[in-house]
Amino acid sequence: MIKQLKPSALSAQIEDMVEWLASYGSDNSGGVTRLLYDPAWSAAQKAVQAKIEHLGLTARYDDVGNLFGRLAGRDPEAKVVLTGSHIDTVTGGGKYDGAFGIIASLLAVEYLLTHHGQPLKPIEIVSLCEEEGSRFPMTYWGSGNITGVKDRDNVHHVKDANGISLDQAMQAAGFGSDLHPSPERTDLECFIELHIEQGEVLEREGKSIGIVSHIVGQRRYNITVYGESNHAGTTPMKWRRDAMFTAAEMIRLLTIRATADQSGLVATVGHMEVKPNVGNVIAREVTFSLDVRHSNAETIKQFCEACFSEFEIIAAQHGTQIRYHKWMDEPPVAMDHTLTKAAEDILKRGRISYKRMTSGAGHDSQIFGTHCPTALLFVPSQGGISHSPAEFTHTEDLQRGVLLLIDLLYKLAY
Amino acid sequence: MIKQLKPSALSAQIEDMVEWLASYGSDNSGGVTRLLYDPAWSAAQKAVQAKIEHLGLTARYDDVGNLFGRLAGRDPEAKVVLTGSHIDTVTGGGKYDGAFGIIASLLAVEYLLTHHGQPLKPIEIVSLCEEEGSRFPMTYWGSGNITGVKDRDNVHHVKDANGISLDQAMQAAGFGSDLHPSPERTDLECFIELHIEQGEVLEREGKSIGIVSHIVGQRRYNITVYGESNHAGTTPMKWRRDAMFTAAEMIRLLTIRATADQSGLVATVGHMEVKPNVGNVIAREVTFSLDVRHSNAETIKQFCEACFSEFEIIAAQHGTQIRYHKWMDEPPVAMDHTLTKAAEDILKRGRISYKRMTSGAGHDSQIFGTHCPTALLFVPSQGGISHSPAEFTHTEDLQRGVLLLIDLLYKLAY
Repeated sequence: MIKQLKPSALSAQIEDMVEWLASYGSDNSGGVTRLLYDPAWSAAQKAVQAKIEHLGLTARYDDVGNLFGRLAGRDPEAKVVLTGSHIDTVTGGGKYDGAFGIIASLLAVEYLLTHHGQPLKPIEIVSLCEEEGSRFPMTYWGSGNITGVKDRDNVHHVKDANGISLDQAMQAAGFGSDLHPSPERTDLECFIELHIEQGEVLEREGKSIGIVSHIVGQRRYNITVYGESNHAGTTPMKWRRDAMFTAAEMIRLLTIRATADQSGLVATVGHMEVKPNVGNVIAREVTFSLDVRHSNAETIKQFCEACFSEFEIIAAQHGTQIRYHKWMDEPPVAMDHTLTKAAEDILKRGRISYKRMTSGAGHDSQIFGTHCPTALLFVPSQGGISHSPAEFTHTEDLQRGVLLLIDLLYKLAY
Repeated sequence: MIKQLKPSALSAQIEDMVEWLASYGSDNSGGVTRLLYDPAWSAAQKAVQAKIEHLGLTARYDDVGNLFGRLAGRDPEAKVVLTGSHIDTVTGGGKYDGAFGIIASLLAVEYLLTHHGQPLKPIEIVSLCEEEGSRFPMTYWGSGNITGVKDRDNVHHVKDANGISLDQAMQAAGFGSDLHPSPERTDLECFIELHIEQGEVLEREGKSIGIVSHIVGQRRYNITVYGESNHAGTTPMKWRRDAMFTAAEMIRLLTIRATADQSGLVATVGHMEVKPNVGNVIAREVTFSLDVRHSNAETIKQFCEACFSEFEIIAAQHGTQIRYHKWMDEPPVAMDHTLTKAAEDILKRGRISYKRMTSGAGHDSQIFGTHCPTALLFVPSQGGISHSPAEFTHTEDLQRGVLLLIDLLYKLAY
């Protein structure tokens, strides 16, 4: 089927659609900013709606603002094959994150409808309202409502940086007032998400497609070391209880341990706060973040336990105390084996290079993955750069993703 | 001579005077805040002036607000024996830092005048206008003007946090308009400063008096590590250029090196800034402070060179770059051997325990020390706490300091 397409026409279409969608929310940074329920977000959803309708599909919103485009199937009993990604971006984001999954869905369904007519099973495109957590302190608002893990009655306290509540913002955008159907879906056969990798594994290894086996689990901690402030000049080294020195030993130790792991574990300290944070005063308190990810929850647990038991020894040596605040503990989510096998078969037949890999980043697929069979498929990200105006994927790579999606949807729905 | 004093009367006098001077600028924190040229500062200088005049000495200000009380000597050719300390405090400081040196001077001169009448050489009490750098970004304004290392014509750019210039503040307090004599002095025979230790060496070692041999030299750096920001989930450990990990290795290394030094070197990292400082993003830039002090400039230099050459290896291993910004390089200042020997002899005769030690903190004595023979003498600080309302020294310790000052001034001026 891939051979029936004119690649040059498709690649021009892909490039046009990337620019078209990026024009909604294009900002001064040269990037794209579409925050949940803001005017750029509304304009982008309306543009996608128009495109859906232009294809002859039925467009509809649910009550949190997820947008669907339905191509009805011949079998009235059949469940829905759903494909898409999220329309929102980070502040000053790129043109591909989320957007590419929506564009690919539109192009794939257009192709299938043109060349193969009505499918057996209904296919729906979805432009999910929110994934990034850029405006409100919560993520996966779109997929979470569809799968029933988010509850609109339980977020009245959620506000953005300007003090506008999620409820207010939702209603101002025309949602949240039961004018649209409830978002929860029980009629999904599967979900397929095409996304940029947001890492550089595919590029470095020269692979065209990533077939995600698991979305990693992650634990996040804030770890606080309590020492004693003292004068940097008058306190001999031997009498110090230096929270900075303790934290430095811990960060070094955990990073060396993570680097020695051969199974794909990653551990990151990206944030640090020091009190009083004055050059000539020994630090009395240092709080640092710890972000640990792996496809196996037990591996994460064992890594943390091993580090923390060494931390106790370090703290005892330094006369400092430690407090751990675990504020995230998300289990890994496996993608569906049948779906990923189907994708693999297509790529093998087409002699397209691919890599079975984990996703170290979170995606809507991890929410769908506990609700219905789900596949997450990556195209390369140049330099691994994402959440930046510099985010870029070569058109040939995007095209290989679209072609894979066409074949996969054909196999699943026709 | 010590035996002629009634210690109980002196100790009551000391306690009264500590409370008396602390009442000028007593703040909500339970501490004392007297910032250069502010109303509390002016009130305190006026109170000290009144006390000087009450003793029958001649009070005068210089044109930056240093206050002197002169007890004339019989020898018209003799240079001045100067003693005192600074009247300003940090914000929310204690009752002893600076203040005790002024109080001790007043009490010692009162005692000498009462018991021994006019000295051979003139003795002057000084209440120095500024040492702490709490209001304006500069230190040693008082001693620096007396010794000619500060220049009133060269500070027009210096402003406080509210944008008030040093010139404006000085004039509002009645100085800086040549109504008073120029501050520079060329008639000083010596300077004696009594001060709290602001460390806990004396307390821990059970010594009553610290005789300072050197005020340490210090180098201060800001050291910036440049790495690369990347996604904490999608970037394998082996491909990272993590500025936080690099900084942690460096901080650990330099602290271990300093701790291993047996010659009194101290090295402190008290400040850190991380960019972007987000838990799930690998740090692209970490800037940390380095404060190194020792009584020997060569030891400081060698320590820094040894650390920095190891830093280069660490940075190369991590694929990061380093930039060093040295913004302070003050040489150690030796106190006068004859003066400190005289103090030592007095303490030996009185069977008072003492320790020859370095001062890890800066003091006005380091400014005087390059201008005229200078002695800096410490009394213990309970728990080493200073720059805090909790700053405390037992009255017996304060009294031993005052008695030493009486004997030393007697030896020098009578």
